[in-house]
Amino acid sequence: MTPEQIAQLTELSAKFDMLGKVNAEILYWWCTALMVSIHAGFLAYEMGASRIKNTLAAGVKNILAFAFLVPTFYLFGWFIYNAFPTGFTISETGWAALAWSSNMGPNLTDSASGIFWAAFTMFAATTASIMSGSVIERITVGAFIILAIALGAFVWILGAAWGWHPAGWLTTEWGFHDTAAAGCVHTIAGFFTLGVLINLGPRIGRFLSDGRAVDIPGHNVPLSLIGLMLIIMGFFGFLGGCIIYVNGGQWVTIFNTPTTLSAFAFNTLMGFGGGVLGAYFTTREPFWMMSGALAGIIACAAGLEIYYPPLAFAIAFFTGATIPLVANFVTRMGIDDAVGAVAVHGYSGVVSLLAAGIFLAGYPNVAEGAPPVNFLGQLGSAVVMVLLGFVPGYLLSLLLKVMGILRVPEKVEVMGLDIVKVPSRPYPEGPGVPVGAPAE
Amino acid sequence: MTPEQIAQLTELSAKFDMLGKVNAEILYWWCTALMVSIHAGFLAYEMGASRIKNTLAAGVKNILAFAFLVPTFYLFGWFIYNAFPTGFTISETGWAALAWSSNMGPNLTDSASGIFWAAFTMFAATTASIMSGSVIERITVGAFIILAIALGAFVWILGAAWGWHPAGWLTTEWGFHDTAAAGCVHTIAGFFTLGVLINLGPRIGRFLSDGRAVDIPGHNVPLSLIGLMLIIMGFFGFLGGCIIYVNGGQWVTIFNTPTTLSAFAFNTLMGFGGGVLGAYFTTREPFWMMSGALAGIIACAAGLEIYYPPLAFAIAFFTGATIPLVANFVTRMGIDDAVGAVAVHGYSGVVSLLAAGIFLAGYPNVAEGAPPVNFLGQLGSAVVMVLLGFVPGYLLSLLLKVMGILRVPEKVEVMGLDIVKVPSRPYPEGPGVPVGAPAE
Amino acid sequence: MTPEQIAQLTELSAKFDMLGKVNAEILYWWCTALMVSIHAGFLAYEMGASRIKNTLAAGVKNILAFAFLVPTFYLFGWFIYNAFPTGFTISETGWAALAWSSNMGPNLTDSASGIFWAAFTMFAATTASIMSGSVIERITVGAFIILAIALGAFVWILGAAWGWHPAGWLTTEWGFHDTAAAGCVHTIAGFFTLGVLINLGPRIGRFLSDGRAVDIPGHNVPLSLIGLMLIIMGFFGFLGGCIIYVNGGQWVTIFNTPTTLSAFAFNTLMGFGGGVLGAYFTTREPFWMMSGALAGIIACAAGLEIYYPPLAFAIAFFTGATIPLVANFVTRMGIDDAVGAVAVHGYSGVVSLLAAGIFLAGYPNVAEGAPPVNFLGQLGSAVVMVLLGFVPGYLLSLLLKVMGILRVPEKVEVMGLDIVKVPSRPYPEGPGVPVGAPAE
Repeated sequence: MTPEQIAQLTELSAKFDMLGKVNAEILYWWCTALMVSIHAGFLAYEMGASRIKNTLAAGVKNILAFAFLVPTFYLFGWFIYNAFPTGFTISETGWAALAWSSNMGPNLTDSASGIFWAAFTMFAATTASIMSGSVIERITVGAFIILAIALGAFVWILGAAWGWHPAGWLTTEWGFHDTAAAGCVHTIAGFFTLGVLINLGPRIGRFLSDGRAVDIPGHNVPLSLIGLMLIIMGFFGFLGGCIIYVNGGQWVTIFNTPTTLSAFAFNTLMGFGGGVLGAYFTTREPFWMMSGALAGIIACAAGLEIYYPPLAFAIAFFTGATIPLVANFVTRMGIDDAVGAVAVHGYSGVVSLLAAGIFLAGYPNVAEGAPPVNFLGQLGSAVVMVLLGFVPGYLLSLLLKVMGILRVPEKVEVMGLDIVKVPSRPYPEGPGVPVGAPAE
Repeated sequence: MTPEQIAQLTELSAKFDMLGKVNAEILYWWCTALMVSIHAGFLAYEMGASRIKNTLAAGVKNILAFAFLVPTFYLFGWFIYNAFPTGFTISETGWAALAWSSNMGPNLTDSASGIFWAAFTMFAATTASIMSGSVIERITVGAFIILAIALGAFVWILGAAWGWHPAGWLTTEWGFHDTAAAGCVHTIAGFFTLGVLINLGPRIGRFLSDGRAVDIPGHNVPLSLIGLMLIIMGFFGFLGGCIIYVNGGQWVTIFNTPTTLSAFAFNTLMGFGGGVLGAYFTTREPFWMMSGALAGIIACAAGLEIYYPPLAFAIAFFTGATIPLVANFVTRMGIDDAVGAVAVHGYSGVVSLLAAGIFLAGYPNVAEGAPPVNFLGQLGSAVVMVLLGFVPGYLLSLLLKVMGILRVPEKVEVMGLDIVKVPSRPYPEGPGVPVGAPAE
Repeated sequence: MTPEQIAQLTELSAKFDMLGKVNAEILYWWCTALMVSIHAGFLAYEMGASRIKNTLAAGVKNILAFAFLVPTFYLFGWFIYNAFPTGFTISETGWAALAWSSNMGPNLTDSASGIFWAAFTMFAATTASIMSGSVIERITVGAFIILAIALGAFVWILGAAWGWHPAGWLTTEWGFHDTAAAGCVHTIAGFFTLGVLINLGPRIGRFLSDGRAVDIPGHNVPLSLIGLMLIIMGFFGFLGGCIIYVNGGQWVTIFNTPTTLSAFAFNTLMGFGGGVLGAYFTTREPFWMMSGALAGIIACAAGLEIYYPPLAFAIAFFTGATIPLVANFVTRMGIDDAVGAVAVHGYSGVVSLLAAGIFLAGYPNVAEGAPPVNFLGQLGSAVVMVLLGFVPGYLLSLLLKVMGILRVPEKVEVMGLDIVKVPSRPYPEGPGVPVGAPAE
């Protein structure tokens, strides 16, 4: 072998390694980009789910949640993820995730931190958007922002450190497996929302004096449906963010178990199809059908890379068919969840974790010494996720309620939040022009 | 060369091969994701093209088509594609595409089946969406689903096996060339739709007693326009699914002819621009302009990788300019195609195949022993595609008509499908609040 | 080393090189695709920002701009970029960019030209869309198309040749640095628009006889907000088009300075968050918040790959907070900028260039002999960009005004452009059904 050939080989190896860094950046860049579609979707969905008088207030809230999560997840969230996989003790890895670390900015020797931070930030903003729809038409902007930051920059990411991290204690101790973040994102966000809704109370007119519920339909259902389909497109960005690129090797999950993106593709579509058809089966309602699409994918998420596709379809069908029932149950408890997020995200997240406990029992986790997937580990982890969401959501919203800043005054709610809080009208030429407002 | 260097070389080769699998998965994953934008787009487009009273029924139909195609294409469609390239004899390759094959689920040794299946499933759902808009406002959901499954899980994919497959008999025998699936997707879906429309009949009020047509405009044209632009974005996912990644080699078409994605980029944009301007030239109508964008890309699809860009522009301009005339002709035949799919997809697909016959005559197909591209081969193949779409669409819809389940009762059609079939209203606060419905 | 091993090494090297070409094509293909989302977004945004009577005319204009830019950028724009980096002398590199060059079409030996041309064409169409929103409700379609072609196929791309090109004279002579095209795209388009607006004049009713401005709100603010969020998604495609893929090496900017996509990710999101919050701080207005998101990203664009993320946030916050003030100032000058593009693009672009002059002073440019980044170079280049936009925009619109074809007749403006210019209505069933028009 000539020296030239040796040099060629060495150079090629180095270039191949560099290629791996670049490829990973490209992958997660597109994940981040597509997750913006989740936010375009939530924006459409939520404004459509509001009555006209609250449309822009719903939108403002949603846009602010995304915007506030960027700096707060930079300051706190990323540190929490890297610091607390073992529970409440700070791991060494946390320090590199603090704002004054050289990893937390442009750095030619670190092509990973920024892109992973960005993808995680989009996850964080998604948790806030999950709550956002449920609390429309009566929450104050200030209280919502505090709750959104608590959920997106603190709570869910602690759950992710525990249960969606190669060294998370739920996995290393209990064998927890949750490939596409059904626990830390959906279960936590759903139950955090439940905690908030209890203190927030229902919209005026949602329940009659005898406790019977009155439907308050959103003013633009087509807009909500299109928004939900944009969320589905964005879900591919989210799921792409749940698989780890290994240069020249097999893909792994965040738990270091080997997988393929091909497997993700099978079960993402099966989750979509099963969820839509399940919800159609029980409701015939397009809003629930598209919510079922989300619920179906969420329900398959914990074992997304392993299920036989027809099994994924069945899990999704079951979940899509049952979310409307769960939502009805929540309503019968006197809780006003305007878009059904407790059912679609909270309940479906739990189903996802338990389904993995049932169907994947015995499947190994690669983390050293970690027990294999097992039902009790999944059940216990689901309880942890439910509590990690519910307790902070309940306590913080209780505090805000006691301080008198959780909910807008009754008069504002009746008039509509837009008129009081937003210096513009959604449809100046109608429908819904406020009395006295100038038409063109 | 030291043993270490030999090992390094061997390892690098192996890693490079693995990289190829992963790169292909990533490419088609994003194709699949972007094709969801086609469905968000069709959803917006179709609901906008309906009258208010039928808006949600149109949406429900569209969402169901996508959802039903997932399991049915898994069970039947993928097998048909792999089994029938030679005509009606089952090829060996078909068996790996059956639901009980180890390829049809997560499999660490097969990183291709899932991702290709997913991309093809999105193509399948697209064929159903092409039909979906044309039949709005009077078809029953049940009949539509049966027709959608027939088209998406059986008919078009048989056409793909014949004419969009490296071993498809139309190519190996007749020299058929159709890079971006103008034949199996657009021609077949368009003519299947024509067959259905003949039996379905026009909407009440579409034709006067003397046969003159009355325009029935959709209730939200801006929504339709935005939907069409989302379809254009999704088209890049569709076209990305029409080029085969070769690790460390030149791209090839599905016919194994060499190409570049760069060539696709030139002619996709030229197809867009030409199609819009052609339709603007003849109509000044935004709905037709955006339909012209689709038609222009479709018209360039068969030779997308070969045309000189100004030629692609000219083909697209011609097609965009003529689709409104074709749509008028269809209407004059007494056929009520609510969104012009027969013209936009059926006619443009045929133009695409014939244009390739004219401008690419003599261009070689790589499949062994296959004749080069030739006009008669393209013409004959176009006839096959037209018949393969039209005949099943006509016969199956005739059967459904005879059974009395093709069309909703007249009374339902007059009242609007939403009121009878969907337990929610699109715009509860107006416009279009049904008489007696509770406003807020 | 055996001959087999030598052959293996040689082959692997060749495959690796080929892989680089393919990877670059894939990257910019997705950039192009996502930039279609910019156009879906602008379409939604602009139609929403029009009054009902002008909705479809606004959409038609927008779609036409994109469509006309495809052939004109093919014929002129790409040549200008490659020919004029040194000023007004034609460089050798220009000839390969002319329509009769073998590079300007499918070419198995050139996998770069088509994909780069496509991405640049989307940039070009974006400049036209920036202007498009400002001039709604009174410009003629013909004049708009002439101006759009001038801006998109000639003016901005000359600015790009000078200041967004590895050999551009602004960089080689003055040390100009502008990573994500804040100057050639946003500054030029914004000030071109200003020039046009001066001659075009305000909409009837925009100013009272005493000069006070009357707000003319768009008819569908939710649609505008969703459109703006789709533009943000598309911005990731735009920014991806601002980084150069180097096979097996470090990313570089268009100025050949090393960077990472990870750095882009940090500061893109920081720009988004800071811009939204800044605009919220000064206005509480959702339209300005989402405009602030654009402004924030634009303001960080010139130094996108270098800023410490909290600095990027601060720059974006400042810019988001000040754009409404700038827009008010423009209005007080008697100029009617219907969507604030002069502030959002023109002003933010200038802020971006100057901020890089302040915060990046001394940072080296890699082009041989080029001075490092310096404030005077950035300031001088900003002046060049402002003039390069303003002067042609002003002169050409003045010419069109003198010819009497710039603006629709007063009667048409009062009735609405849709009724006169577009053979369809946006909402045939209301709201806004024109008097005498047939409801369903």
